[in-house]
Amino acid sequence: MPKRDDKGQGDGAGTLKMLENFGDELLDDVKAYKNPKFTMLSRAKSNIIFEEKRGYLTLGKSREERNFLNVAQSKRFMQTVAIAAKCHKFVSENLHTSIRGLFYQLKYSLGEDVDENIFSEQTESNPLIEDLEAALNTKREFFNLYATRKGVLAGNVRVIDRFGNERTETDASKMGRSGWTIPSDVDNDIEFVDVKARYILVVEKDAVWQRLNEDGFWKKENCVLISPQGQATRGTRRLIRKLADMGLPVYVFNDGDVWGWYIYWTIKTGSINLAYIGNEIATPEARFIGVTLSDMKRYDFLRNMTMRASEADLKRAQEMLEYPWINRHKEWAEELKSAIKLKVKLEQDTLQGPRLTFIDDYIRDKIKNREFLP
Amino acid sequence: MPKRDDKGQGDGAGTLKMLENFGDELLDDVKAYKNPKFTMLSRAKSNIIFEEKRGYLTLGKSREERNFLNVAQSKRFMQTVAIAAKCHKFVSENLHTSIRGLFYQLKYSLGEDVDENIFSEQTESNPLIEDLEAALNTKREFFNLYATRKGVLAGNVRVIDRFGNERTETDASKMGRSGWTIPSDVDNDIEFVDVKARYILVVEKDAVWQRLNEDGFWKKENCVLISPQGQATRGTRRLIRKLADMGLPVYVFNDGDVWGWYIYWTIKTGSINLAYIGNEIATPEARFIGVTLSDMKRYDFLRNMTMRASEADLKRAQEMLEYPWINRHKEWAEELKSAIKLKVKLEQDTLQGPRLTFIDDYIRDKIKNREFLP
Repeated sequence: MPKRDDKGQGDGAGTLKMLENFGDELLDDVKAYKNPKFTMLSRAKSNIIFEEKRGYLTLGKSREERNFLNVAQSKRFMQTVAIAAKCHKFVSENLHTSIRGLFYQLKYSLGEDVDENIFSEQTESNPLIEDLEAALNTKREFFNLYATRKGVLAGNVRVIDRFGNERTETDASKMGRSGWTIPSDVDNDIEFVDVKARYILVVEKDAVWQRLNEDGFWKKENCVLISPQGQATRGTRRLIRKLADMGLPVYVFNDGDVWGWYIYWTIKTGSINLAYIGNEIATPEARFIGVTLSDMKRYDFLRNMTMRASEADLKRAQEMLEYPWINRHKEWAEELKSAIKLKVKLEQDTLQGPRLTFIDDYIRDKIKNREFLP
Repeated sequence: MPKRDDKGQGDGAGTLKMLENFGDELLDDVKAYKNPKFTMLSRAKSNIIFEEKRGYLTLGKSREERNFLNVAQSKRFMQTVAIAAKCHKFVSENLHTSIRGLFYQLKYSLGEDVDENIFSEQTESNPLIEDLEAALNTKREFFNLYATRKGVLAGNVRVIDRFGNERTETDASKMGRSGWTIPSDVDNDIEFVDVKARYILVVEKDAVWQRLNEDGFWKKENCVLISPQGQATRGTRRLIRKLADMGLPVYVFNDGDVWGWYIYWTIKTGSINLAYIGNEIATPEARFIGVTLSDMKRYDFLRNMTMRASEADLKRAQEMLEYPWINRHKEWAEELKSAIKLKVKLEQDTLQGPRLTFIDDYIRDKIKNREFLP
């Protein structure tokens, strides 16, 4: 990654230099009458490995090359260079945009002279941004590209946000029912000045976050309360990683079904799609509070609260059972087998059944008794 | 609606009284050996009307009855009463939950003695909550039920938020890149203490909101910048209505396709599904900035920025063309006919094509020249 100063601030100079070097090397090839090319770690499935010692999904050692004088690659090659040039411009201007904004800038620049299909679909440009990230061993956030943002936080966390021409300080303990929206980029121009908490609690659903926030759960427990609001975005996963780096334990409370469980696993080990930035976004220290199907043994009423699993649920359970980074934990293998056998699931909202605040007690008890799944 | 004090604060006493009256009337029927029943405005399609003078979708005068001694209705009747009882409890406890939380409380209360299918699916309980809202002429937000929240705001807006045991003040001009997350309920225990702006700008996509926020657009223009982040939730629509009530003009900037256009229409006239609270959430004063297909006449480059419309897009355009509240505006009928004829669409992100800040100029020019669609 381009180095920023200790506090994660920077003027993008590192990124500019990096992109310029990338261009210079290609230009050197051209000047030397060589075929311009660049290489990067392969993101093919065959090169995605689970790094057991570190506990996350990452890329193996196999490399790929993109070169200009290869009929199958020249279009991709040219497009990637065009993307690099645009990103250089964005960083120079100190302006951000989405990958959709980038896509339309490329479409605009290429104009009418070029076959309109060259960038007719954004799905075509997305993998090229990943190529560039992998080739330069960085993240798109450093190119001033924001990804979808989603996720909310409450707790004793103070953040300084340098954005546009403004510098604002946000106190996530004073955000009422709204909470602090987690930005898509928590590396650049965001400084965590003060984090006072015993642990991080991640809850899958925004509705459950709101419930716990209303109870002042994070205040009573002195924790940081986060909801990814479904599957966790890059920004939310990166934030969790950064908080874990401050020495805070991370506990995750999700639905008791394959989708909730997989959200946990993407937080913990990263995901196949983002294996190329696994070291930046995975939090192998995370522990799973629930919901588990074995909760039914301890909480009788849950037996009447199950939903039927769909065919898609069962198929997904089977797939997850085959992931070596999951099935190495016998507790998880058992949960998945139960899901397949019993054909049921348990939503986290079920724990509001006896009374709305029962959910608070459930979480507290699980943490107190350290009843986690690995 | 149950009356709160002038500032929209309240202790829920009005709602409690209303729910108690609802129960008392049913009890009176029982005591008088009459068939307990309640009535409400029908939410059937045939009773959804466009109120031309007021400019929004609402319910007509046709009423429906739910009564206990009707085989087809007794289950629904009983479920609705159970929901009313739970909501009374939530308001008494001063605690909020989602309709999913309510659903599980009902499931829990009914326990094992009752046919498990009585509330086996939440899709079954949702219309019953609407029954109750319609019967009592109120909104679920007053029953302490929150709906999905989505939507973000930046601008010179100060809000006091009384939530749980806390009272917080939020200044939406000091929220950096994050913005203020619009709550699901902006009626109760939320007070808009200060709104200083010339107008409200609503932009469909969060990515475009982020772009404009970075440029300090709302600061330069002295406007309130809102994104519903796609289709607008009840809370965001209600907030726009409340801001319009303060005398601020509302301008909407969305994708130039049927989905973006329909998001505008739901903000302006309300929607068929929420016609029963049309007066609360519709903002007929809203005007449409763009993107329109006629923009291609003025901005040449847009001709190279179109996307092909899908079959679903064309079908939806035809449907919208048949809505009388849309086709009464010849400008809109023309747009929809163009979409069908040209088979193209234009995303709002395209306006970042020439340069990232072009989008700011586009909006400013349209507002300055009052080039709106009605």
